[in-house]
Amino acid sequence: MLPLELMLAIAIPIIGLALAGYNAASVLGIKPGKRELTDINMLIAEGAKTFLMREYKTILPTGVVLTVLIWAAYYVLFPKPINGLMSGLAALAFALGAIGSAAAGYIGMYVTTRSAAKTAWMARNGMGAALSTSFKAGTVMGLSLASIALLVITILYMAYSSVLPTPLWAEAMAPVAFGASLVSLFIRVAGGIYTKAADWGADIVGKVEAGIPEDDPRNPGVIADNVGDNVGDCAGMASDVYESFIVVLAGALLLAAVFGLSSTLIRLSVMIATLTLISTLVGVQVVRGEVKGKSLASAAMGKLNMALYTTIIVAAILVAIYAFVAFPLMEATAIFISDLLGMITAIVVLYVTEYFTHYTFPPVRNIATQATLSASNVIVAGYSYGLLSAVPTILMVVTALGASYVLGSMYIPPGGVRGGIFGTAIASVGLLSLAGIVISLDSYGPVSDNAGGLVEMTGMEDVREITDSLDAIGNTFKATTKGYAIASAGLAALILFIGFIYEVVERMVQIKGIPLTIQTLTGYFGELTVVDPRIIIGALVGVALVYFFSSSTLSSVGKAAGELVEEIRRQFRSKKILELWPQEKPDYNRAIDIVTSHALRSFLIPGLSAVIIPIVLGLALGWIGLVGLIFGVIIAGFPRALLMANAGGAWDNAKKYIEIEGLVINGQRFGKKSEPHKNAVVGDVVGDPFKDTTGPSLNPLIKVVNTVSIVFAPLIAYVSLINPAAIPIIHIILVVISAL
Amino acid sequence: MLPLELMLAIAIPIIGLALAGYNAASVLGIKPGKRELTDINMLIAEGAKTFLMREYKTILPTGVVLTVLIWAAYYVLFPKPINGLMSGLAALAFALGAIGSAAAGYIGMYVTTRSAAKTAWMARNGMGAALSTSFKAGTVMGLSLASIALLVITILYMAYSSVLPTPLWAEAMAPVAFGASLVSLFIRVAGGIYTKAADWGADIVGKVEAGIPEDDPRNPGVIADNVGDNVGDCAGMASDVYESFIVVLAGALLLAAVFGLSSTLIRLSVMIATLTLISTLVGVQVVRGEVKGKSLASAAMGKLNMALYTTIIVAAILVAIYAFVAFPLMEATAIFISDLLGMITAIVVLYVTEYFTHYTFPPVRNIATQATLSASNVIVAGYSYGLLSAVPTILMVVTALGASYVLGSMYIPPGGVRGGIFGTAIASVGLLSLAGIVISLDSYGPVSDNAGGLVEMTGMEDVREITDSLDAIGNTFKATTKGYAIASAGLAALILFIGFIYEVVERMVQIKGIPLTIQTLTGYFGELTVVDPRIIIGALVGVALVYFFSSSTLSSVGKAAGELVEEIRRQFRSKKILELWPQEKPDYNRAIDIVTSHALRSFLIPGLSAVIIPIVLGLALGWIGLVGLIFGVIIAGFPRALLMANAGGAWDNAKKYIEIEGLVINGQRFGKKSEPHKNAVVGDVVGDPFKDTTGPSLNPLIKVVNTVSIVFAPLIAYVSLINPAAIPIIHIILVVISAL
Repeated sequence: MLPLELMLAIAIPIIGLALAGYNAASVLGIKPGKRELTDINMLIAEGAKTFLMREYKTILPTGVVLTVLIWAAYYVLFPKPINGLMSGLAALAFALGAIGSAAAGYIGMYVTTRSAAKTAWMARNGMGAALSTSFKAGTVMGLSLASIALLVITILYMAYSSVLPTPLWAEAMAPVAFGASLVSLFIRVAGGIYTKAADWGADIVGKVEAGIPEDDPRNPGVIADNVGDNVGDCAGMASDVYESFIVVLAGALLLAAVFGLSSTLIRLSVMIATLTLISTLVGVQVVRGEVKGKSLASAAMGKLNMALYTTIIVAAILVAIYAFVAFPLMEATAIFISDLLGMITAIVVLYVTEYFTHYTFPPVRNIATQATLSASNVIVAGYSYGLLSAVPTILMVVTALGASYVLGSMYIPPGGVRGGIFGTAIASVGLLSLAGIVISLDSYGPVSDNAGGLVEMTGMEDVREITDSLDAIGNTFKATTKGYAIASAGLAALILFIGFIYEVVERMVQIKGIPLTIQTLTGYFGELTVVDPRIIIGALVGVALVYFFSSSTLSSVGKAAGELVEEIRRQFRSKKILELWPQEKPDYNRAIDIVTSHALRSFLIPGLSAVIIPIVLGLALGWIGLVGLIFGVIIAGFPRALLMANAGGAWDNAKKYIEIEGLVINGQRFGKKSEPHKNAVVGDVVGDPFKDTTGPSLNPLIKVVNTVSIVFAPLIAYVSLINPAAIPIIHIILVVISAL
Repeated sequence: MLPLELMLAIAIPIIGLALAGYNAASVLGIKPGKRELTDINMLIAEGAKTFLMREYKTILPTGVVLTVLIWAAYYVLFPKPINGLMSGLAALAFALGAIGSAAAGYIGMYVTTRSAAKTAWMARNGMGAALSTSFKAGTVMGLSLASIALLVITILYMAYSSVLPTPLWAEAMAPVAFGASLVSLFIRVAGGIYTKAADWGADIVGKVEAGIPEDDPRNPGVIADNVGDNVGDCAGMASDVYESFIVVLAGALLLAAVFGLSSTLIRLSVMIATLTLISTLVGVQVVRGEVKGKSLASAAMGKLNMALYTTIIVAAILVAIYAFVAFPLMEATAIFISDLLGMITAIVVLYVTEYFTHYTFPPVRNIATQATLSASNVIVAGYSYGLLSAVPTILMVVTALGASYVLGSMYIPPGGVRGGIFGTAIASVGLLSLAGIVISLDSYGPVSDNAGGLVEMTGMEDVREITDSLDAIGNTFKATTKGYAIASAGLAALILFIGFIYEVVERMVQIKGIPLTIQTLTGYFGELTVVDPRIIIGALVGVALVYFFSSSTLSSVGKAAGELVEEIRRQFRSKKILELWPQEKPDYNRAIDIVTSHALRSFLIPGLSAVIIPIVLGLALGWIGLVGLIFGVIIAGFPRALLMANAGGAWDNAKKYIEIEGLVINGQRFGKKSEPHKNAVVGDVVGDPFKDTTGPSLNPLIKVVNTVSIVFAPLIAYVSLINPAAIPIIHIILVVISAL
């Protein structure tokens, strides 16, 4: 008989998937009475599908090669006779991680892209109907993601731990995180380049050169642009958070296994995720019925916030009950507070992000005011607030990390460093367990955004007000969720960073055939001192990797946009669309195709460098240098992601503030098309690749350097033991120099 | 009798100061035959003096308080009977460090600001005369700085080591670095805010609102603006590099003393600095006589580069001779190569910076091409190249660090970690020893810049071509020197970071009364493992400090500029200067005063946070947390300084490229006042606070967190021993929470 925890950890995600299916069916069952709505919507949906399928097709060969590589590495590096089993299971875990991510992305995208027309149509029945339709569509993504992640981890844990001893099953599982990373890296980077290149390209020829409106169907790039919104905000965000969730769960299991914790503690992270998924199933029920109040927008916002808070409160109660039943008093308290700290981090980060990116607060208003001076002032002010916005989020993460560590080290057996790190892992699980509800809220954004676009394109003026309100709320959640995703990535990366270190040490003592005592452990940790030049060099190379990666993703957007611009100009010239419309229609798919293939090509260099540089450095400087590199990447990448996402969000909303509310300076009002508005647009356009390409791409970067390292940990451990002295490559160079 | 090394180390800087005095006298002795030239020049010179004196007056009380604090801390924390002597010497060292920096800045500024009129006048005699005049003025700053730094360190070393045993004399000396830091922090931050606020403010009302030219004497902000150029490029750069030089020399002495190295090795860093100063005295002689060739500009550039290379080659020869005479073969080789690595780093960094910021190379041209699309494209492209530009510099620094470490660990006794770190210290000394020549080249920039301005203001059209060429070369050196200053700050900070760790360990074993064996040392280093949450938390807080500091310096510029704008508008209104000129003259000093006082007020928050946060964190999390913080500040601050300086330089030159060469796109030429030029100007203005305020301010930040920590190391060590367990503050909070 399965233990109760595991039965729940299987049953609840299945219920989650069932609810997602039910919600999908009920939204997709709506039949809009306006043909045009569905037609345009299907163009976007098909475009998104085409994009995802091309991504997956590109990932497939890389994935197959990596599966074989992982299999081979484990086969060679683990001792007989378990090497056969280990290598097979490791390769399988990797494949499952990737397939799960791809599946969650596909299901969610399928439903959200098709739901815009339904939402637009339901808006005729009022705010309540429109809100519940678009939110239901969002829950399909949120619930599938959380359920699939939990299911994949639970099944792997159950299966692997039944055939392998502790901690080998955890080591065999670890590649699941790399699988999720790989997909997420692809979608975030290539998708991020795609989405902004399509946006820029379509705008440059459409709005600027031809002078036609933003969502004009005569623009050959317009569908590519709409597809991009879904790719970035929906598939990108989902694959990113899915990855963090997998990373945190796999990391917590690995740490628990290597630490030799009790089986109740081993299963604790899965249990917290399960209980929070239950509370998510409760929370999403809140968003239904009529929306009433003097401001429909704030009433709708209230309902969505209520869904989040309901989830958190129910989760806190369930976790508290479980903890106090399953553990002694002080241990239960430590576990409960750690979980709570994770959830509080989520709330604080969401609010901090809103404060810095929404125009009801001073920062965005100040940026807008700077627009009366010049575009340069807008840029400097936005950048400066972006830098500042990282500070409270970092301090919150640090507080959660420190407090949960101290609690763990005091009360979670075996206490000390291991209890402390496990406490932090619990806090991270607490943060990530909210992925289901947060992604539901986030995915509602692109649905309402596209619904707004469809309403505009099809001239449904009567529901415009409702879809505009929905869109505005969606934008807020899209921005704040970015903060959540970054904080999640940061904590996930830190957990796996420690996991990687333990994994390498575990491998090294295995190879040496010595027992892993506290003394051995302390000795190995002592080698990772910041005084060691390999740590310093590794960290600086890590920062250089973050800079290189950021630079190349940023510059790719402009190049890809340039190709789209050429194509749109060509279509305008050759087909005379502007003159002959609607007899002559643009070739939307060609535009999508061009941006997609350029985005995938641009992915190559930053993507490969993220995967290859850690391994190369690890082979050159040994595990110590690699630990330095990962540390540098996290320390530089996490704040940079916050800076870029929040500065971008703030510029975006400074422009919107001028458009919607207008600036009043010395009695004069400046609105759309005024000089300050033009200045604010400069900031908005700069912010696009900041917040939608490079910023989000840093999330998978800081995780993938960990996941790739953990997968190749057996190799790194082996190489480090062959040449434990110092810096092999530099040694060789210098021996040659001094011989000359 | 003094050893030969020390006699040289006293005599050579005195000769250096004498040459500086001679050069100053010969430049200041030139009497321009045009009254107007001297009049305007004196306004600038007096303005600069006023600014510096106000800075120094503000520093004075802070300095006095800190002197007393340092005295008290050392008196309380060092054991009797040496505490009386230690505390007095430490306080004296601190004061000397600050006074030396202030003196070098004052002397240099005095001469450079007064030399613009002389250069403009000498330009009538041709390029050769103009070049040698402005370069001579520059050498006054360069030679005084290097000579004073070396003299201060040598005298302190001789005096302190004669009354205190090793390593106490080095510990008593260490506050000299904090003294230099304090002045540099003030001048870089307050001066950086001043210079760009004056620039922005004067431009907004002058160029934009009133439509008068940039250097128009009717603009009340014009002198403030010119003063700002000198403050930033001259005093700011000098105090920054002086600080790095002092930090590196003091750091090398401290390490050598704590490591218990031989007295020849202890004096090695002073000796290398002395020999390189000799070669600098030779190098500066190259720039004299006629300038001939088909391009005067490139011939002049060639002479200046020749001065640099002559210095490097002579220095390499002298150091080689000394090393092979004073040390055994392999040790001498290691020392020589390490020194050479430092100098090669200087050359590489200068070239990398030029590549990314000068318009003869692709990056700036590509940014300029983006200006045909939009201002946003200019910003994104420049930012992207800024990120990329940090990569080769980081890799060069890392290579120098790694190679010198390996060499040192193999061949410099006692070998191992200590030999390795000492090897890296030698490389850093090699880099910094070039300060004299590099600052001479840098200071020549503002002289020729101001000369150009004076020529424009006084209508000396006939020499315009010469001063324009000089100015263009000066701009190149100003930009490339920034790269040198950043790399120097980075290496200096790393050396002192290690120095701080050794100092704390030394203090802790003293307090405990145990001997400092290799085992003890390894044990303490082992505590600094990146696995420890205090290191992780400290590092993240360090990054947050860098972000906060950057944000607040950036945003201060806009605010200070706003106040100047109000003042200029007020003067235009009340005095009707534009209409009544030249009867009615602007009140230049009031404008200078307003910007100065605002800049000094704006300095408070970032300045204090840089000094106080390390101490607070050290007291809260102990020495381990503080080590994490310093690590985080260096890792985040060093690349960010490169990003901001180089992006700013690239934007600046993209604009200049369009102005000077023009953009030719599809046969159409775009020059000044074209749409692309306007877009490029947006980038240029954004770049101003990037490259002249925040970027340069990060240099003293990454050093001051080290110097303040090293000064308060005895206190941090004491506190860490009282509560060695973990995280005192978080402990208290959590004990309270769990009690509730």
